[in-house]
Amino acid sequence: MGACTKEMSEFKLSILGSGSAMAGINAFHTSQVLSLRNKQFMIDCGEGAQMKLREYGVSSGRLNHIFISHLHGDHCFGLLGFISTLGMTGRKADFTIHAHPDLTKLFSPLFEYFCQEFPFSVHFEPYTPYKSEVIYDDKSVKITTLPLKHRVPCSGFLFEEKGLAKHLNRRMADAYNVPISKFKEIKEGADFVTDDGEVIPNEVLTTPADTPKKYAFMSDTAYSEKNLDLVYGADCLYHEATFLKEDSVRSKLTLHSSAADAALFAKKANVKQLIIGHFSSRYKDVSLFLNEAKQIFDNTYLASDGKVFVF
Amino acid sequence: MGACTKEMSEFKLSILGSGSAMAGINAFHTSQVLSLRNKQFMIDCGEGAQMKLREYGVSSGRLNHIFISHLHGDHCFGLLGFISTLGMTGRKADFTIHAHPDLTKLFSPLFEYFCQEFPFSVHFEPYTPYKSEVIYDDKSVKITTLPLKHRVPCSGFLFEEKGLAKHLNRRMADAYNVPISKFKEIKEGADFVTDDGEVIPNEVLTTPADTPKKYAFMSDTAYSEKNLDLVYGADCLYHEATFLKEDSVRSKLTLHSSAADAALFAKKANVKQLIIGHFSSRYKDVSLFLNEAKQIFDNTYLASDGKVFVF
Repeated sequence: MGACTKEMSEFKLSILGSGSAMAGINAFHTSQVLSLRNKQFMIDCGEGAQMKLREYGVSSGRLNHIFISHLHGDHCFGLLGFISTLGMTGRKADFTIHAHPDLTKLFSPLFEYFCQEFPFSVHFEPYTPYKSEVIYDDKSVKITTLPLKHRVPCSGFLFEEKGLAKHLNRRMADAYNVPISKFKEIKEGADFVTDDGEVIPNEVLTTPADTPKKYAFMSDTAYSEKNLDLVYGADCLYHEATFLKEDSVRSKLTLHSSAADAALFAKKANVKQLIIGHFSSRYKDVSLFLNEAKQIFDNTYLASDGKVFVF
Repeated sequence: MGACTKEMSEFKLSILGSGSAMAGINAFHTSQVLSLRNKQFMIDCGEGAQMKLREYGVSSGRLNHIFISHLHGDHCFGLLGFISTLGMTGRKADFTIHAHPDLTKLFSPLFEYFCQEFPFSVHFEPYTPYKSEVIYDDKSVKITTLPLKHRVPCSGFLFEEKGLAKHLNRRMADAYNVPISKFKEIKEGADFVTDDGEVIPNEVLTTPADTPKKYAFMSDTAYSEKNLDLVYGADCLYHEATFLKEDSVRSKLTLHSSAADAALFAKKANVKQLIIGHFSSRYKDVSLFLNEAKQIFDNTYLASDGKVFVF
């Protein structure tokens, strides 16, 4: 028991903020919400994430875990506001923030001060940003850190679905008079024993489960292939693309990627689709990023505030 | 010497955020910028103030002082983001934050962490929110705290212009052959001595200076008349109006004001105009606030994000 019985697999990624350090009107600081199996995970929480969440109608009722990639303001300054506003909405479930250990030291006094009367607690789960490790694991998803190459300790996150149930072959189940009460355990892999004692192998009653989905978030980072194996074959990769290739001096100096870098990583990692974002505000035409990436990896999309990707 | 020689007096108030605790898309958390005599003062800095500042094209080049009314998140959670983003724009001038002493304790570790490489410093100037005191004074403006009545220590701010120069009567100045080099000191009150030794009294050469302007900011607060004398006759009063009169139970419980409360205070304080804001998101039609206030004080305006008041 305990395995998830959900048969259909679907990831929904809501982009709350797609901008870089100098936020634009329609490109707030980095924040995303990934929904899967009736759970929601927030990835980074830049300033204004709470406003964008409401503007785009993204619910947060099942959002209990927040993953912060690194301690630059444009990836974490929305935390206090997001959580404290939820303290006024009747929310009761605790929050867990997964982040670099310094975040605990810096933010816990503020949570204690501003959120002292809340009906829920905020827990801090520090992770080590220098090595890849599993930081969340339940019956339906495993989340692994992806150490990145940035000016401060920084980590991406890999969301890997698990525990997908097989599909019941209803025609065969009816043929063997399988009662509805047995469906759940059969979808989880059990054989069926008829009233006559005949064992019907699980393979006869089911078709294979969907292939588990995989989403990788990689921001902020210079080009690096160290996470290639972990990300390999992902259904979707978000990779930062702060600059264009022509500004490689800036990329190297600030340890950011170009659109071409993101596309090259996507190609080598053989992912199904690439989303790029975190564009520097110095560029007025973001289609330049798309053009640059598509020359290397065609199935590329631009992140923008409010956009939703389903895969 | 040293007195400001500016003759024309004009205050420009830019509303960056006009909402209350549950920010709306077009009603971000409280923040305003008051511009006068080529100086800018920020009053409160709710989350997203930096985005609104850029969206509305409000410059911050001469904004060196930030005044925080109280330590509720919707009045101060934008501080870190606002200041740290300016650290990337080549700004060199220091910031001074005037706030309750707890703000220093809570935020200084974050400024040290996130702003350590900035070319400017952030200073904290705590004030005592329980008594009215002058917390800023220069040649052109004096800023006094206005202790308010809220659930936590809270203070409004009174901005009083000073040092306005007299207007030169150019016709009379020419008649007495006053050289241009003497204009400045005459506008500041000096008499003029002709080449023949004749003393021309200042009153002959000038007309009186404009009446100094006065702006009072009062948020968040329950109705209270304790600042009536200080605010009396102000050119403009911003007073919170979180609720309508019909929800007086909520006002009393949360120590907020109704639109009628704000208007009554404006009327008793004999101010020239009233701006109300901080409307609870429970009301979908903000014109209800305007109607309620106008029944008591006609010259009332609604605050909204991006609105600019000149007085």
